Amino acid sequence: MTENIYVVGHKSPDTDSVTSAIAYANLKAQLGVKEAVAAAAGNVNNETKFILDHFGLAAPMVLTDAAGKKVILVDHNEVGQAVDNVMQGDIVEVVDHHKIGDIQTGKPIFFHNEPVGATGTIIASLYEQNGVAIPKAMAGIMMSAILSDTVLFKSPTCTEKDKAAVSKLSQICGEDPMKFGMEMLKAKSDIKSKSALDILMGDFKKFDFSGTKAGVGQIEVMDLADLTPKRAAILDEMKKKADAEKLDMIVLMLTDVMKEASDLLFVGNAASAAGFEKAFGGKLANNSIYKEKCLSRKKQVIPPLESAFKK
Amino acid sequence: MTENIYVVGHKSPDTDSVTSAIAYANLKAQLGVKEAVAAAAGNVNNETKFILDHFGLAAPMVLTDAAGKKVILVDHNEVGQAVDNVMQGDIVEVVDHHKIGDIQTGKPIFFHNEPVGATGTIIASLYEQNGVAIPKAMAGIMMSAILSDTVLFKSPTCTEKDKAAVSKLSQICGEDPMKFGMEMLKAKSDIKSKSALDILMGDFKKFDFSGTKAGVGQIEVMDLADLTPKRAAILDEMKKKADAEKLDMIVLMLTDVMKEASDLLFVGNAASAAGFEKAFGGKLANNSIYKEKCLSRKKQVIPPLESAFKK
Repeated sequence: MTENIYVVGHKSPDTDSVTSAIAYANLKAQLGVKEAVAAAAGNVNNETKFILDHFGLAAPMVLTDAAGKKVILVDHNEVGQAVDNVMQGDIVEVVDHHKIGDIQTGKPIFFHNEPVGATGTIIASLYEQNGVAIPKAMAGIMMSAILSDTVLFKSPTCTEKDKAAVSKLSQICGEDPMKFGMEMLKAKSDIKSKSALDILMGDFKKFDFSGTKAGVGQIEVMDLADLTPKRAAILDEMKKKADAEKLDMIVLMLTDVMKEASDLLFVGNAASAAGFEKAFGGKLANNSIYKEKCLSRKKQVIPPLESAFKK
Repeated sequence: MTENIYVVGHKSPDTDSVTSAIAYANLKAQLGVKEAVAAAAGNVNNETKFILDHFGLAAPMVLTDAAGKKVILVDHNEVGQAVDNVMQGDIVEVVDHHKIGDIQTGKPIFFHNEPVGATGTIIASLYEQNGVAIPKAMAGIMMSAILSDTVLFKSPTCTEKDKAAVSKLSQICGEDPMKFGMEMLKAKSDIKSKSALDILMGDFKKFDFSGTKAGVGQIEVMDLADLTPKRAAILDEMKKKADAEKLDMIVLMLTDVMKEASDLLFVGNAASAAGFEKAFGGKLANNSIYKEKCLSRKKQVIPPLESAFKK
């Protein structure tokens, strides 16, 4: 019996991390690596569930601990974002589109990171490079991941390569990208059904900014006003989370995808508050700084925080 | 005026690191990135000089400090092996075939690592993926790098992809790979002209094994007996180097490419000696352990050391 190789995305799984695991496991299987198994680091969110249902796929198994297991990491390359004990497992590949983190290995592995809008774009090109046909459902979920991560091409992380991939994938899956993308965003931003904790943890990642321990989450909505009634409860959950996890700060991006702006909620200690204000060139008012033209955590929130805390 | 982007390999440059810098800078230039400049982290060795002369190319400029500079790292991805102050520079790409090290970036970059025998193999495939024709001299130096890093295909690091690349590159450059490879090895293993320090530092890299600071070098010869007269002087240089750089241990692989075996010279403290013996399942005798079928630092020496020192 051969040992499974789990293809898994980051904690607080979003659409790109879940669909990339499914599509990459499919590619590996087509290449003869039958032991590749798609996994997710937690339960899938509303948007991902909508997409998987639409293309007739089941949610992948949940994997929360990698100790003693072979894993392929997709859509992340930082220990703090990975399933527990990832360094006590055996990381055999990494496919990602983020900044280069702190994963180290004892031997050479395939590690491919590319500055494009979604991991789905990279995996679509890996099908092509390996001469493997993309099944219809795989095309559908990769197209969805690219539309989700780039907020329908509006995010500054979006590249020509992402647009070209969506164009090709939409032909295979037979869906109109913009029409399907709007339905997807509606499924995602069904705020009323969500608790303050769901809103905070729906897309939450940990970072280490030169020793400052931080959590940075994001929620995308069609209208920021929908969140106003829950604002106090969300700040309360942020404080509880920072205490429980001994974090110096938590930032939650409340992103208005129609206005293309984000209200950056902040909780944290005084030193972190100073760094946060430095990063975004403003003063905290009512626990937040509002930024126009701010959609991307990866490109517009993490780099200024990295710089502001650099020693 | 646009800012240069230096394409540079590791310290103690070997053939793959120097030729990869030259070939990748050529590919970038052909793709319109005219500011790409090939560099080397030091003077080129005898083997590399022989190859560059043969294909009519000059040695690249020497770059020793990356502070404030844009750099593309080839053939390495560890800070300890890179030019000085690489983390005070701006790492814009990485192309490598080693284990994943400790490079971190503030934003997403192109980072491609693949478990093949040489960086030259990867760069040859990047020409192809980008639809760029490989110039004759570039084909010649990439072929040489693959033959050098895989010790004419004998190293266990060698893959089918390396052999296929050499086959393709030899057609472009018009050289018989095995014939040219033997001439190259002869140029490399001209031991008599080298000092004990040259022998130690010719291909020397630093590693951190769970806190144990180590240097691991390698020299390839046609006959180990050629090194016997210099053995005491080499051990002396290893001790001096360990003291000067505050290293816990230094290993120097004296590799007999004809017998496909290595005599692993060791100097270091007692704890490191215990780890070294554990790693190679033997007892130090006359400052070394002799290993049959041992040619590759990356695949046969670093992984057992990583494991032996793992806490």
